[in-house]
Amino acid sequence: MRLPPGPQGQESAGIVTSDGESSQAFKVHKGMGLINHVFNADSLKKLYVSNLGIGHTRYSTSGISELQNCQPFVVETLHGKIAVAHNGELTNAVRLRRKLMRHGVGLSTSSDSELITQLLAFTPPLENDDTADWVARIKNLMNETPTSYSLLIMHKDIIYAVRDPYGNRPLCIGRLIPVGDMNGKGKDNSETEGWVVSSESCSFLSIGAEYYREVLPGEIVKISRYDVQTLDVVPRPEGDPSAFCIFEYVYFARPDSIFEGQMVYSVRRRCGQQLAIEAPVEADLVSTVPESATPAALGYAQKCGLPYVEVLCKNRYVGRTFIQPNMRLRQLGVAKKFGVLSDNFKGKRVVIIDDSIVRGNTISPIIKLLRESGAKEVHIRVASPPIRFPCYMGINIPTKEELIANRPEFHDLANYIGADSVVYLSVEGLVSSVQESIRARQENENSLKTQKSRVGKIGHCTACLTGEYPVELEW
Amino acid sequence: MRLPPGPQGQESAGIVTSDGESSQAFKVHKGMGLINHVFNADSLKKLYVSNLGIGHTRYSTSGISELQNCQPFVVETLHGKIAVAHNGELTNAVRLRRKLMRHGVGLSTSSDSELITQLLAFTPPLENDDTADWVARIKNLMNETPTSYSLLIMHKDIIYAVRDPYGNRPLCIGRLIPVGDMNGKGKDNSETEGWVVSSESCSFLSIGAEYYREVLPGEIVKISRYDVQTLDVVPRPEGDPSAFCIFEYVYFARPDSIFEGQMVYSVRRRCGQQLAIEAPVEADLVSTVPESATPAALGYAQKCGLPYVEVLCKNRYVGRTFIQPNMRLRQLGVAKKFGVLSDNFKGKRVVIIDDSIVRGNTISPIIKLLRESGAKEVHIRVASPPIRFPCYMGINIPTKEELIANRPEFHDLANYIGADSVVYLSVEGLVSSVQESIRARQENENSLKTQKSRVGKIGHCTACLTGEYPVELEW
Amino acid sequence: MRLPPGPQGQESAGIVTSDGESSQAFKVHKGMGLINHVFNADSLKKLYVSNLGIGHTRYSTSGISELQNCQPFVVETLHGKIAVAHNGELTNAVRLRRKLMRHGVGLSTSSDSELITQLLAFTPPLENDDTADWVARIKNLMNETPTSYSLLIMHKDIIYAVRDPYGNRPLCIGRLIPVGDMNGKGKDNSETEGWVVSSESCSFLSIGAEYYREVLPGEIVKISRYDVQTLDVVPRPEGDPSAFCIFEYVYFARPDSIFEGQMVYSVRRRCGQQLAIEAPVEADLVSTVPESATPAALGYAQKCGLPYVEVLCKNRYVGRTFIQPNMRLRQLGVAKKFGVLSDNFKGKRVVIIDDSIVRGNTISPIIKLLRESGAKEVHIRVASPPIRFPCYMGINIPTKEELIANRPEFHDLANYIGADSVVYLSVEGLVSSVQESIRARQENENSLKTQKSRVGKIGHCTACLTGEYPVELEW
Amino acid sequence: MRLPPGPQGQESAGIVTSDGESSQAFKVHKGMGLINHVFNADSLKKLYVSNLGIGHTRYSTSGISELQNCQPFVVETLHGKIAVAHNGELTNAVRLRRKLMRHGVGLSTSSDSELITQLLAFTPPLENDDTADWVARIKNLMNETPTSYSLLIMHKDIIYAVRDPYGNRPLCIGRLIPVGDMNGKGKDNSETEGWVVSSESCSFLSIGAEYYREVLPGEIVKISRYDVQTLDVVPRPEGDPSAFCIFEYVYFARPDSIFEGQMVYSVRRRCGQQLAIEAPVEADLVSTVPESATPAALGYAQKCGLPYVEVLCKNRYVGRTFIQPNMRLRQLGVAKKFGVLSDNFKGKRVVIIDDSIVRGNTISPIIKLLRESGAKEVHIRVASPPIRFPCYMGINIPTKEELIANRPEFHDLANYIGADSVVYLSVEGLVSSVQESIRARQENENSLKTQKSRVGKIGHCTACLTGEYPVELEW
Repeated sequence: MRLPPGPQGQESAGIVTSDGESSQAFKVHKGMGLINHVFNADSLKKLYVSNLGIGHTRYSTSGISELQNCQPFVVETLHGKIAVAHNGELTNAVRLRRKLMRHGVGLSTSSDSELITQLLAFTPPLENDDTADWVARIKNLMNETPTSYSLLIMHKDIIYAVRDPYGNRPLCIGRLIPVGDMNGKGKDNSETEGWVVSSESCSFLSIGAEYYREVLPGEIVKISRYDVQTLDVVPRPEGDPSAFCIFEYVYFARPDSIFEGQMVYSVRRRCGQQLAIEAPVEADLVSTVPESATPAALGYAQKCGLPYVEVLCKNRYVGRTFIQPNMRLRQLGVAKKFGVLSDNFKGKRVVIIDDSIVRGNTISPIIKLLRESGAKEVHIRVASPPIRFPCYMGINIPTKEELIANRPEFHDLANYIGADSVVYLSVEGLVSSVQESIRARQENENSLKTQKSRVGKIGHCTACLTGEYPVELEW
Repeated sequence: MRLPPGPQGQESAGIVTSDGESSQAFKVHKGMGLINHVFNADSLKKLYVSNLGIGHTRYSTSGISELQNCQPFVVETLHGKIAVAHNGELTNAVRLRRKLMRHGVGLSTSSDSELITQLLAFTPPLENDDTADWVARIKNLMNETPTSYSLLIMHKDIIYAVRDPYGNRPLCIGRLIPVGDMNGKGKDNSETEGWVVSSESCSFLSIGAEYYREVLPGEIVKISRYDVQTLDVVPRPEGDPSAFCIFEYVYFARPDSIFEGQMVYSVRRRCGQQLAIEAPVEADLVSTVPESATPAALGYAQKCGLPYVEVLCKNRYVGRTFIQPNMRLRQLGVAKKFGVLSDNFKGKRVVIIDDSIVRGNTISPIIKLLRESGAKEVHIRVASPPIRFPCYMGINIPTKEELIANRPEFHDLANYIGADSVVYLSVEGLVSSVQESIRARQENENSLKTQKSRVGKIGHCTACLTGEYPVELEW
Repeated sequence: MRLPPGPQGQESAGIVTSDGESSQAFKVHKGMGLINHVFNADSLKKLYVSNLGIGHTRYSTSGISELQNCQPFVVETLHGKIAVAHNGELTNAVRLRRKLMRHGVGLSTSSDSELITQLLAFTPPLENDDTADWVARIKNLMNETPTSYSLLIMHKDIIYAVRDPYGNRPLCIGRLIPVGDMNGKGKDNSETEGWVVSSESCSFLSIGAEYYREVLPGEIVKISRYDVQTLDVVPRPEGDPSAFCIFEYVYFARPDSIFEGQMVYSVRRRCGQQLAIEAPVEADLVSTVPESATPAALGYAQKCGLPYVEVLCKNRYVGRTFIQPNMRLRQLGVAKKFGVLSDNFKGKRVVIIDDSIVRGNTISPIIKLLRESGAKEVHIRVASPPIRFPCYMGINIPTKEELIANRPEFHDLANYIGADSVVYLSVEGLVSSVQESIRARQENENSLKTQKSRVGKIGHCTACLTGEYPVELEW
Repeated sequence: MRLPPGPQGQESAGIVTSDGESSQAFKVHKGMGLINHVFNADSLKKLYVSNLGIGHTRYSTSGISELQNCQPFVVETLHGKIAVAHNGELTNAVRLRRKLMRHGVGLSTSSDSELITQLLAFTPPLENDDTADWVARIKNLMNETPTSYSLLIMHKDIIYAVRDPYGNRPLCIGRLIPVGDMNGKGKDNSETEGWVVSSESCSFLSIGAEYYREVLPGEIVKISRYDVQTLDVVPRPEGDPSAFCIFEYVYFARPDSIFEGQMVYSVRRRCGQQLAIEAPVEADLVSTVPESATPAALGYAQKCGLPYVEVLCKNRYVGRTFIQPNMRLRQLGVAKKFGVLSDNFKGKRVVIIDDSIVRGNTISPIIKLLRESGAKEVHIRVASPPIRFPCYMGINIPTKEELIANRPEFHDLANYIGADSVVYLSVEGLVSSVQESIRARQENENSLKTQKSRVGKIGHCTACLTGEYPVELEW
């Protein structure tokens, strides 16, 4: 078992390791800031007591940004220490906090993760000191709260990987590649060097692991030195479809990550193709704002038969500067983040593919810049639908009032941002781009039949686009 | 109410402030390291929501040195948030931890302070959300654990100051001096600008406060904006004397602090005088290793009629250097911390007064240095008895094996450290130096009669010297 | 006049400002490290005495990496202070140093920039304190040393911008755009807000300036508050062509920079097109290693009629990590810098366009990675010729022995790096890609006739590719 | 030869080492701030090429506080590199700068130390590259400028130690003690491990060296691996006495340093004794403000027959705090730097010995504090005369207007600072306290006769007290 890596966090990071023998001997290192600030050679050396550990990086959502909220959480229980890393946000946290406090448990943080550790510790009466049925406790927890959580729970030499019944947050398992394998010898499972778990499969390559499989919605997986074993799959209420966050595909995940059997890059390219079908435009070239929308732009260009051309290049250093633009620069509306490749589009009609427009204040100066540098027309095509609603399941979205789609300017958006036209991808277009290949695979592959029955009806959380939340929200 | 200051901690520091109105609105800032590293203008500004707060600085004793153990602890309970700062170490912590965990409370740190907060939170059943009798909870806590703790507990607009029934750790109250007072106007209590609480009274002067009184052993004091009110005094078991840590007088406290009505400096000078009576020596001058033993040295010199002379001066910078002495310097046995004032003692017989000898490896190179610089004889007199036993009540003492008094070298100590003679103060001599003026005052002052009955029989904890602990230790 | 910006340096940075009145009142701030480490709000505030200043960022070449070598250099001369920023490396520095020292001048650094400042200061006899003919001194300097240098020399309220007669290092002038201009009003030179000078025109956009023109080889330009004035153009020896560094096009410059009237991006795309003509290949798709070779890859793909596809995505964080790969990861040959978009090329024949292969150890693991992820064939096409010779004119190139083109492995390079084939662009192909549009413009535009005569015969320095240096090297 | 240590600097620090063979191979490390910030294990390792080096720490006097002014200065001359460390300030710097610039030398800093290095480099004509008479150059420098400077000049494997003819700044030589010596074996010079040079002898002990002798006024000493050799003694103008800075005794030097054959501590005690003769007072006890005036206070107390008692203790942490006192604390006039030992002086008449009163704003709140804590009377005795004049020889003294002795308040000083009386030591009293033992030794010791003739007439610089400067000042 190795530390489960993930995208490097902006707010806090932590690692807890276990020696795999004593239920008391955890090593903990946590801190605020980027991973490379939190960890150094000394702290990693201190942590290295075995190959067993869990880690966490955090972009704050609920839970004030403080060290106390920093994960993984460790608590000592009657049956030894457990460490918990949590991705997501509980939809019934307020009720659960009150319940615990009513039993006399003081809560030292505002984080859902402490709540989860105390819920796991708290199952009175606990007369017998010597045994603890952690699976029963985990199932008990899952009965108390439907979503959203992907969890790693470490106790002694076991890590439990858990995904909520709706599968709202991602979680997948990787296998460390034995050195022999890479030299052309057979990949024999018995030679496995260990297992890793991560939110995103993209993290496996850089540590010499390969994608093994996803943890299924509701699944409790027990991971030990050599085994990956499904202990149970907690079902959703009858009729509820699964609800994996569709914005992982659109925006959050790295393009080389795999969810539900498909590469994020491929989904994004399909979104671009779909957008070309939904919103074609008479133009000379297709381009993008570097660089997250490149797959959609290549998909759009290919579907339209227009050339893909670069119109901007990144100004690498500007993002890190502390120097605030002065009044003059603001008046000039200078786009400091980009250089302009004007020779590539002078006198041409340009289609810019963007992945999303949240507030509208990023794309507007870029359009101005392109026009001043000679673009004849600038058309904007957005490879996702407009965001209109808040997320209560772990994603930090601007307030409803800040979202461009809820503002009066949205009714005349092209004019507001200075474009010749602007069209978003439809919700249906996005959902079909995401689900198309999942359904195709489900229908064609017999081998998936069993799994299909376990996963139940496939759906995706589009709450931020449609306001339809997968579960009722409690306050 | 102001932040209770104390000597600046080496390991961690924290402040929690309350707006005095909401039971939820605490501001917390904690961190590892020196106060000046933990706090800056920004963090202090963030904390400044009112004049109400508690702070803590920590020298680790039990509890691994980690940010999680950093005080004050804050927990949310059914009746709002409380913040707790704790000085001391519970003698029955292990049993209390087990008790809480058996009720399903997970403990996230190894610190006694979290234990205390959870014990205050935990008093099931807690059916009624609206009221909480904090005094009953504090008394309940004091019944669970006899010593050692001085506590500050903040809830809404109240701070409870509590000292354990044995009074093992210090705690005293100061009064902020109104600006008018300093200009010769009357000190009218009604004009009081507020109250401060601290382990050591020495901290009052630098914030414009004056010593008001000690919190008595077992006393629960309620401190609000204008009032200091005794809520209760929890008694010790029949016959047990109080047990204030005698090492506060000998070593820890700053010389201008006041405990039990006497200035620490005066006690130390009396120890020097007593030492002159117990262990006189034929010599030419009395001196000391700068600078904690100066009061004892001046007391010894005066009692003996010998001149007090400086033989060493401090090398101000050496302590902070990262440069390790190389082999050559080690072989030369160079005392890097001091400069030598050889003209002051060349050809003379020198008595050096030290406040304690813990391991013996500090005094030895100094004696060598004095001899090489011309001292004819070097006699060591130690103004406290040898430490022989561990402390389980909050003081970090080397292991029994490391203590010089438990090692074979102790039998021929003068030879081992290279002195012409070495004599320690007796335990009786120390105790009488400490208690002499307390008893005198108790006998003479009628006004103290009432208080005397409340305080009970006066004693001091000399466990590290004698092995006689004030309460039975539990494991 | 504003600070001349440039690409942010890795080794040191400095700014000197002048109040424009006193010849003594320079403000200087310099430091090691990235610009954002060297400068903060305070240091910038301190520097802001007027709108006049010069700055410098440094990637060490000759001159040990020390703060003393950090530019701009300031010296006080009989005629006041001058500040000098220098880009390049003098080919006769050793002889010039000796000459100065023979006159009794002590040199405090190993940098060419100090040499230049002392050469400017030193023109004995200097009987008259009151006047100094700086142009005569600059011409004197240019007669002493033929190349390579682009210089900014600040004295009182004037900045002299100088390029060596061979034009080896770039230097161009930008005009600050008045706020009115951006709102559609006429661009009237009389409204100019000031001038900026930079090595690369790409820096102008982000400070609200626009490209005005290049400083010509040998030109001495005097820049004052409102004027840009050519003082002189120092000619090259009869018959010598100009020698602008061709590697600025290939590698160093940002793609949106303009040299000799053409955008770097366009040159790179032409190199890709030329490469497609010189070295076509039967394949399914064209791609690149992100992201500097993208223009060449798009040019190659377009010329060949093959689709341009992304095969790798960047792993954003890996470059900054301090964590060294352990033995296991090294054995696995994991390419930590990239994620693999395997769905995009599985079973396909891939052409990878790279901009240069210096040592061969970067491309090799990428090829391995692509093959393991399913590429059927991997062909490498390099959009520049092999580097074989050291640069003595300011560019840090590996030693001759380290260069792959000088090693035995080069004879069987495809096999060495694991590719199916590998072909470099020819020197002739590179030179024609660079010069094609310059010549076209020179022939077509009458308006350039005068300038052409001033610039003389157009050439480029290809010394690192061919060993033919533009001037004889002195030691 | 080891690095010459000294008191740790507040502004900048630097070390230059030589491998002792090549005249080019210096290693340099310099930086702003405290020694422990400037140097770490890495930088020291880098410097360690041999046992030969010079270092410098700086408290800025003239010369703006910038890294460029940081010493030692290194310049390359026709005859190799030299490194120079300088203590002092040249009284004719302005004229010398002009002279150099007139010869075409550009000066890159405002520091006297660069001036000295360029003066050493500049002795045209320098036709012959192969030889350099450094002694002639040093004598030439000493003829150009009379004072004040103590210099270390390193070239190849030699360090020249130079003191100006007036001996204004200190410089002394120490001998590294062979390990054998400390174990009782004979101190044979042939076994000497090397030599060290320092401003203050106090630095020798902590590096395992012992005081050897002072560099005499005007002396040029050549120090090599095994030898210390006087090359010449440059005389003062006929009749001029030497002029060692008397404030080194009064204030700057550490008490265990030795100048002119006497320990600073002894001089300070004699000043206290002399003060008791000049200004006795009816009182109960003598004390001091910790801790620089302690020797004077002990001398005063002994001479008067009054007991020496501590009235204040240091508040260790306050000096380092960033927290500014607020209005309230300022109004209260709280002395944050000290704790008050009121039991020691309540109801008593106190004499406070201070070493100097510069502005009067330090002693005033202390007197107030003592009175409020119960002192019956507070008399101030100052163990040095009032400072009235600026120093132009290297010491940073407040402007004439800031000095209390030049202000109207001085006429009623006791009242202004709130004391019952205040008396300063006379200039004659100070001079005789300093010179008494020097003269005694000169008269008694025949062995000193030769040296006496070399040193000439003994005097001390009292310019800051009397306005009589040892040389005429040039501007």
